[in-house]
Amino acid sequence: MTKKIMPASGTVINKTFAYPIRVYYEDTDAGGIVYYANYLKFAERARSEFLRTMDINQQQNLIEKHTGFIVRSCQIDYISSAVLDDALTVICSVAEVGGASAVIHQEIFRDDELLAKLDVKVVHMNIETHRPCRIPPEYIAKFTNFIN
Amino acid sequence: MTKKIMPASGTVINKTFAYPIRVYYEDTDAGGIVYYANYLKFAERARSEFLRTMDINQQQNLIEKHTGFIVRSCQIDYISSAVLDDALTVICSVAEVGGASAVIHQEIFRDDELLAKLDVKVVHMNIETHRPCRIPPEYIAKFTNFIN
Amino acid sequence: MTKKIMPASGTVINKTFAYPIRVYYEDTDAGGIVYYANYLKFAERARSEFLRTMDINQQQNLIEKHTGFIVRSCQIDYISSAVLDDALTVICSVAEVGGASAVIHQEIFRDDELLAKLDVKVVHMNIETHRPCRIPPEYIAKFTNFIN
Amino acid sequence: MTKKIMPASGTVINKTFAYPIRVYYEDTDAGGIVYYANYLKFAERARSEFLRTMDINQQQNLIEKHTGFIVRSCQIDYISSAVLDDALTVICSVAEVGGASAVIHQEIFRDDELLAKLDVKVVHMNIETHRPCRIPPEYIAKFTNFIN
Repeated sequence: MTKKIMPASGTVINKTFAYPIRVYYEDTDAGGIVYYANYLKFAERARSEFLRTMDINQQQNLIEKHTGFIVRSCQIDYISSAVLDDALTVICSVAEVGGASAVIHQEIFRDDELLAKLDVKVVHMNIETHRPCRIPPEYIAKFTNFIN
Repeated sequence: MTKKIMPASGTVINKTFAYPIRVYYEDTDAGGIVYYANYLKFAERARSEFLRTMDINQQQNLIEKHTGFIVRSCQIDYISSAVLDDALTVICSVAEVGGASAVIHQEIFRDDELLAKLDVKVVHMNIETHRPCRIPPEYIAKFTNFIN
Repeated sequence: MTKKIMPASGTVINKTFAYPIRVYYEDTDAGGIVYYANYLKFAERARSEFLRTMDINQQQNLIEKHTGFIVRSCQIDYISSAVLDDALTVICSVAEVGGASAVIHQEIFRDDELLAKLDVKVVHMNIETHRPCRIPPEYIAKFTNFIN
Repeated sequence: MTKKIMPASGTVINKTFAYPIRVYYEDTDAGGIVYYANYLKFAERARSEFLRTMDINQQQNLIEKHTGFIVRSCQIDYISSAVLDDALTVICSVAEVGGASAVIHQEIFRDDELLAKLDVKVVHMNIETHRPCRIPPEYIAKFTNFIN
């Protein structure tokens, strides 16, 4: 039996990538809103699909080249709160891309209301040596397509 | 601005409901597989969409009637493991439905390989009195459509 | 610099192991109570400390012998709900231990009120071959000390 | 039966608060390290105990005064990775405290190795009106004791 390929979720609109998320009970807390750390989960799901959309295969790179993108820092601003059952959209674009690192800018919306925004700095690492390594030129080209 | 209505996700096939899930980093653990408690999250997401598909509005019932379905017990068998990036399908059907409770049968697949199966007993509760209360007849009729 | 050894948390009382847990926001959901899957996290933390108390070193076994205990099935009954800030106790004992598997019985209390109880069947596996393998006799002896 | 009062966990050393955390499977991901969003869970557990140590009762304030501290923004730097079974320490101090907001500085250590550091801005809010409100003077005095 062949393993089914599920296509990347999300949509490219102009130079941004948009990914839909539904809020379930697991995402909320006793304050009645989405728990603050879970926005980072939403952001990571969207970044995973963003890379998949660009045909960057994280699993394959990890196994064959021992390379991957590691989060080095994250700045998140919480503007308003998501609640149970909300249909959210996570937007991704590229703020900057350099030799071994990139900054992904992300915004989380409910309809046209901005709930949170993040700047996530990722470093391209060799997982075995634990050292940064250059982002391949074809990946830099892909990222550059998403600089607004 | 009107709030966008995101339709229920998932598909009804014969007397079962099928809901797709992608495995992200947040779902996995250091054993390289999906963490055992997270299958219960997958199952709850699918049950949420299953109720939405049947036009049972949990949020509205909670606010207007103070009623909801509470998990009373769960039996889960782990048959094989899901890993990062897997595209899974969670299947839901109704094993039994009585006066104030129901048993939802769920199976989690990767393609046609069964990874886990659950029987989840839910009780229809009045959240204010903390007492079980009868499932409305129209809900029982909806559930009955999903008894195989 | 030597790595500090943090001792196992928890207490052995007669033939049971007791492990304390505080409920934080991350554990709760919009229903105002602990999310149902998170009791499995609490149970796994307690089982980890239970093994540590018995001087069973999971990390070392995984690396040196490629063996570990994998959850095969779990039956959980939810009796009452934990809420934010609760101080809980997770009790562990051994219901049965056989050649390659064991059943751990766990109960979660707030003071003397039983909130949930679980029977967790674990199988001793070789992680490389994905096949069950015999539990070492010294581990069976340790487990037997916790059969009530 | 009276509800047992579990004392605040953690220790005050000079003008900082230190809180111990053990890493369990639930905290890790398929990369073999603690998942990046989970450091925010660790930080929030420590802040909860930090407030408890200062005799600031969050639950009581929420119920009686409808006030609470809400995270407005968070800057986190990831320096090194925690792994399964690690014994970590989360350090809290107060970077600044103003009329209706404060910045908590947090550092996560494994022994004397710094793994992550965060600056978390919290705003004192009236939960019903969704508006910031002044931090009570006695709380400002308590916070001031933890400015280094």
